[in-house]
Amino acid sequence: MTIDLDQLRSGNRRALAKAITLAESKLDSHREQAQLVLEQLLPFTGNSIRIGITGIPGVGKSTFIETFGLHLIAQGKKVAVLAVDPSSPLAGGSILGDKTRMEELSRQEYAFIRPSPSEGALGGVAQKTRETMLLCEAAGYDVILVETVGVGQSEYEVAGMVDFFMVLMLPNAGDELQGIKRGIMELADALVINKADGESLNLAQQTKRHYENAMHLLRHTSFWSPQVLTCSAQEKNNIDTVWGMICNYYVDAVKNNYFTEKRARQNQEWMDKLLLEMLSLKLKQNPDVKKQLPVLHQKVTSGETTPFIAAKTLIDLL
Amino acid sequence: MTIDLDQLRSGNRRALAKAITLAESKLDSHREQAQLVLEQLLPFTGNSIRIGITGIPGVGKSTFIETFGLHLIAQGKKVAVLAVDPSSPLAGGSILGDKTRMEELSRQEYAFIRPSPSEGALGGVAQKTRETMLLCEAAGYDVILVETVGVGQSEYEVAGMVDFFMVLMLPNAGDELQGIKRGIMELADALVINKADGESLNLAQQTKRHYENAMHLLRHTSFWSPQVLTCSAQEKNNIDTVWGMICNYYVDAVKNNYFTEKRARQNQEWMDKLLLEMLSLKLKQNPDVKKQLPVLHQKVTSGETTPFIAAKTLIDLL
Repeated sequence: MTIDLDQLRSGNRRALAKAITLAESKLDSHREQAQLVLEQLLPFTGNSIRIGITGIPGVGKSTFIETFGLHLIAQGKKVAVLAVDPSSPLAGGSILGDKTRMEELSRQEYAFIRPSPSEGALGGVAQKTRETMLLCEAAGYDVILVETVGVGQSEYEVAGMVDFFMVLMLPNAGDELQGIKRGIMELADALVINKADGESLNLAQQTKRHYENAMHLLRHTSFWSPQVLTCSAQEKNNIDTVWGMICNYYVDAVKNNYFTEKRARQNQEWMDKLLLEMLSLKLKQNPDVKKQLPVLHQKVTSGETTPFIAAKTLIDLL
Repeated sequence: MTIDLDQLRSGNRRALAKAITLAESKLDSHREQAQLVLEQLLPFTGNSIRIGITGIPGVGKSTFIETFGLHLIAQGKKVAVLAVDPSSPLAGGSILGDKTRMEELSRQEYAFIRPSPSEGALGGVAQKTRETMLLCEAAGYDVILVETVGVGQSEYEVAGMVDFFMVLMLPNAGDELQGIKRGIMELADALVINKADGESLNLAQQTKRHYENAMHLLRHTSFWSPQVLTCSAQEKNNIDTVWGMICNYYVDAVKNNYFTEKRARQNQEWMDKLLLEMLSLKLKQNPDVKKQLPVLHQKVTSGETTPFIAAKTLIDLL
């Protein structure tokens, strides 16, 4: 596969899509080529605001992203929408990434929507999305929206690769029923209560106050005090307020250097994760390990030895 | 620390608690001693039913476990309650494991309640719970209840270490609001709708039918068709039905060999996880890696190289 880097950099969508496919490939040769591509594009990456968006099913993520994305395009921005959905460990497939979910946005010249990569390759679904993000930046996208469903670790992983992490919520008071985890709340830079329209307006205001109080009790590790906003993606209300908040964050974070520091930290974490993946691959390719692994699996299965002793035996072979 | 294995096997609670503390220790010498203890106790483990219990906060997990545990003790069983709570990545601490949550149960001679291990050591919180489970079995406990809050991966990990995995639910219809993840539904051997009492009785029945339909649509990989039950831990209703269901499962699973096969599979997975942890430790202890790691971290931070190239450089040092 050849990728025309100039084409990609000039914003050619086919070149971009091809590079992403390369990065998502399970073939070692493709992965290596993708790394070369990334290496060359590296100087042209990093110039976007990366925004993570999560929320339980039914909260209106697709509608929000459609409305929010169209708003950004109206401000002259180029918008990429990436999805991270490791889905269920048994079912495999993706429930996100359907362009028909964001019909109007997907028809825009300055929008690029990419469904969730499938499982399997080095670094996992979320890791591949990191590379896709860099490719989109090289192609000139100003805002990257990374959407995730709340499955397993994906929210933590997305929070760990974006500049600003938003949790969409429903206008029902009662955090127990919002399915929100405390850990996620602590990572959130903003809670955005969607569907604040019609008869739910009052409820949304109550919920806002409830979460404003709740957020005060949580620990946060940034200069930023997480905000709680209400909006209606359906009625296109307060979408500009959400974007305004993110712009405020961006301005302050750049000024006090938090922006750069956070990205540097994220890159180190990414490196450490890749290191572990590669290490595991190296172990499995070791000929002695290849021979002993099934033997030890068998001994563990039959209860002859503990998983701990078996693992230690293999490590000592290296 | 000396552990009296005979004392432990005869059911001495102090000896058991001491062995668990050893297994949970972050000291290498303690870990090694704990592995020796486990190795010696291995022939006396495995003779329990391991039951995983999860559910969002507010579903009544503590009350359920108290009532369920007391019911089991009344049937002549010895019951151990273990908690897995990796809690939030920022806050660290544990919100489970408080004995005052299960006041009556904790006073029983034949109950053993152990709070969630703290973070940090080899294999993570959930892995340490595996070892604690084995120690409890050696001490003669017949039923091990492993409780988890729905944070991050913990539900998946607990499902991966028990024989039977139960999700407690509220009698509100509408799965969106139950905060339940599809992946967890697929792993569940039973959904148990708690708080089916008073004015919620009808709602609980509706919810039961709703989830019975939903469960039919999901893929399951076992001989067992997941059940949906209602109960009230508060009013002690249908607790015997829940236990009866688990006994039915146990009888069939043992007969068709699924029980043994599942445990063997779980042990192999455990071994593979430990392998990865040890590998990562070995890498970090390598002198060349120790020297190069900060240099490469710096290069990644400054954007001179990609995390991928940096990781590959380190791997090639091994």
